[in-house]
Amino acid sequence: MSSGTVEPVSVDILGRLEALARFSADGPGVTRFVYDAAWCDAHRWLAKQAEALGLAATSDWAGNLFFHDPALEPGPNAPPVLLVGSHLDSVKHGGNYDGAYGTVTGLLMAAGNRGRAGLPVVGFVTCEEEDSRFHGGMMGGRSILGRVEDHDLDAVKDRDGVSWREALAFARERGCAAPLPSPLPRAPLFRPALQLELHIEQGPVLEAERLGLAIVERIAGYRRWIVRIEGAARHSGTTPMAMRHDALAAAAEMIAAAETVALEAGEPAVATAGFVRPSPGLFNVVPGACELWLEVRHDRPELLRALGEALTRRCEEIARRRGVRVALEEGAAQAPTPLSTGLAETAAGLAQELRIAYRRMPSGAAHDTMIFAQAGVPALMAFVPSRAGVSHSPDEFTAEADLIAGVRFMGALVRRLAERPPA
Amino acid sequence: MSSGTVEPVSVDILGRLEALARFSADGPGVTRFVYDAAWCDAHRWLAKQAEALGLAATSDWAGNLFFHDPALEPGPNAPPVLLVGSHLDSVKHGGNYDGAYGTVTGLLMAAGNRGRAGLPVVGFVTCEEEDSRFHGGMMGGRSILGRVEDHDLDAVKDRDGVSWREALAFARERGCAAPLPSPLPRAPLFRPALQLELHIEQGPVLEAERLGLAIVERIAGYRRWIVRIEGAARHSGTTPMAMRHDALAAAAEMIAAAETVALEAGEPAVATAGFVRPSPGLFNVVPGACELWLEVRHDRPELLRALGEALTRRCEEIARRRGVRVALEEGAAQAPTPLSTGLAETAAGLAQELRIAYRRMPSGAAHDTMIFAQAGVPALMAFVPSRAGVSHSPDEFTAEADLIAGVRFMGALVRRLAERPPA
Repeated sequence: MSSGTVEPVSVDILGRLEALARFSADGPGVTRFVYDAAWCDAHRWLAKQAEALGLAATSDWAGNLFFHDPALEPGPNAPPVLLVGSHLDSVKHGGNYDGAYGTVTGLLMAAGNRGRAGLPVVGFVTCEEEDSRFHGGMMGGRSILGRVEDHDLDAVKDRDGVSWREALAFARERGCAAPLPSPLPRAPLFRPALQLELHIEQGPVLEAERLGLAIVERIAGYRRWIVRIEGAARHSGTTPMAMRHDALAAAAEMIAAAETVALEAGEPAVATAGFVRPSPGLFNVVPGACELWLEVRHDRPELLRALGEALTRRCEEIARRRGVRVALEEGAAQAPTPLSTGLAETAAGLAQELRIAYRRMPSGAAHDTMIFAQAGVPALMAFVPSRAGVSHSPDEFTAEADLIAGVRFMGALVRRLAERPPA
Repeated sequence: MSSGTVEPVSVDILGRLEALARFSADGPGVTRFVYDAAWCDAHRWLAKQAEALGLAATSDWAGNLFFHDPALEPGPNAPPVLLVGSHLDSVKHGGNYDGAYGTVTGLLMAAGNRGRAGLPVVGFVTCEEEDSRFHGGMMGGRSILGRVEDHDLDAVKDRDGVSWREALAFARERGCAAPLPSPLPRAPLFRPALQLELHIEQGPVLEAERLGLAIVERIAGYRRWIVRIEGAARHSGTTPMAMRHDALAAAAEMIAAAETVALEAGEPAVATAGFVRPSPGLFNVVPGACELWLEVRHDRPELLRALGEALTRRCEEIARRRGVRVALEEGAAQAPTPLSTGLAETAAGLAQELRIAYRRMPSGAAHDTMIFAQAGVPALMAFVPSRAGVSHSPDEFTAEADLIAGVRFMGALVRRLAERPPA
């Protein structure tokens, strides 16, 4: 066994992912919304797995779960730890890997490092990351770090009007959350000295480049707009082309402009028009109004800003030229989040030592790690390939060899960092 | 009084239009669907108006209405007549002029020519033209010409499942339709030797060119497609621009292509994308599928065909280049309909005699006259301006002076044609 490997590599990762995937609501793929019955069953199954591996499994009030050495008492007196893990919830009809892969990895890392010298290694499982049931925004990451207040529990509601507080009671009755302290916020059960997350890429880059590993050194931010265009609804047969103020034709040009500004900015800039709705939406009426959703992403704050400015400027130019009114309402935004440069260097050095072909890349998607990094925790992610870049779908797939290689690398990295934590 | 004027010009056109507009369902503007309560009330009001002008008002089985000299007995022994009129129904929340203007004109023409020598002048009011309640396709024009069969009465249904046959019973009970003959089809109550229709333009051309009159020598045809595009739904943050197969971006390029092919073909070619729906329609997913509705119109069959071919070819090129699948399902189509060249020449000559500034133009919209022309009746339309080209809206408006000038011209044309019918 090389110095970089740890025991869990020999453990059946795929079998555990398949076991976790069975905890799902009905329908294709995996549907495991925070605090629902499937989520609670998965939560209890994970706790049993941990106990079988000689670990303690401790839930916090939000249902975040920690796998740790039973000798390590959680709470204010616990030493800082190396946290490694991911999230337990899924999107509707998601796949077997998103979140689950990092969760199982955290479990194996905690087991493989139990009783070893150095920084204690604790597996973590956040209760929620996908915004599927609630639109609370990283409820797991925020709660695990003690960044939730009492009023959040009442303000955050699912589409049936069930509040975070009410949903928690259901999980608590099933033994999947600790009693709710009052008042919030409360300090985390474990203070993270470092935090790591292994995840599937959810994009096509590693597969296209025939690489098995990415070291993720930044998480992209985004800006979003709801664009409302008002032209003039007129009969399609009686209104000459030159006399039209077609809101959908203007939107089409803005969609093309989004592509253009992202291509001009170069990778990793992306721009997406995800939704458009013309009105009245008939064959024989030139659309008089149109709603369009635009998003840009970049991993550098200044380039994200420039990308957004270029896009909104072009939208306004298009509207002016076509004689339509446009209003750009800026919606949710997320600042780009740099991860730890020091951890990225350590990981890159280790990959080279282990002769692992890898690349560095930003993450275009948000992850739990973003919340740790924003809280000032030195944090790093690694990716394994996603076949065809498919994720959030029952077709999500990563080959077993890639899954194993990812866990093997993460095992070596955890060991290295636990033994020689950065200053 | 010049030889070209007739008495009805002095009659209160605007007052009659405003009176008709009060027969409407609730809501803004005029909503008068065929056979509904407002339609029946308007129908009875028109019949009373006709009687007050010394005319007979005769309904056929479909609720089409004729204003004629009481001495003129409808039926197989009636002589051929000059028919002039328009439709009684409206779109939902339509305006005061569409159909109503031509209907009032027909009433006034019949009254002004009652008892005069020459071709008898009969006003007509079709029961339905707008396809608002039923999607029967010109139910009024087809039924007034005896081109409806028994099975049509059961096959055509409104959105509540009420058949044409059932809806007719409601109108018949209110005295707005004659007993239903069996079997259909039956010969029309009056055989049209010629047919004329005065209508608002519903487009912006006359206003833009500061003209009061158009002689409409052709009615444009159209072709329509439902375009279904299939790309790959992927995470907007993790999928680089160069690796996308974005169904909405492809649709946007097709929308732009529609504009381009129409502009390249030149007036009166038009192309319209009236509707588009991307899927899944989220900020953070590159759209994997998209439905797009496209329409092209032209007044020349060979140019309509070429326009359609240019557009579908470009859609296929766009799909190929972007690596998305496209299926173009051709839907409803309408062949371009030439109106009577002889009548257009007579009308143009008359306009010149009367020193009326006019232009010739095709109609981009369908009208009752299309059905007469397709049935081989020498037919012609004239347009008056629509402010800002607005129609099918409560904002539909034509200045009173334009309304009067249009009726005045139509009066002169009717007199000319009644006295000297074309060979």
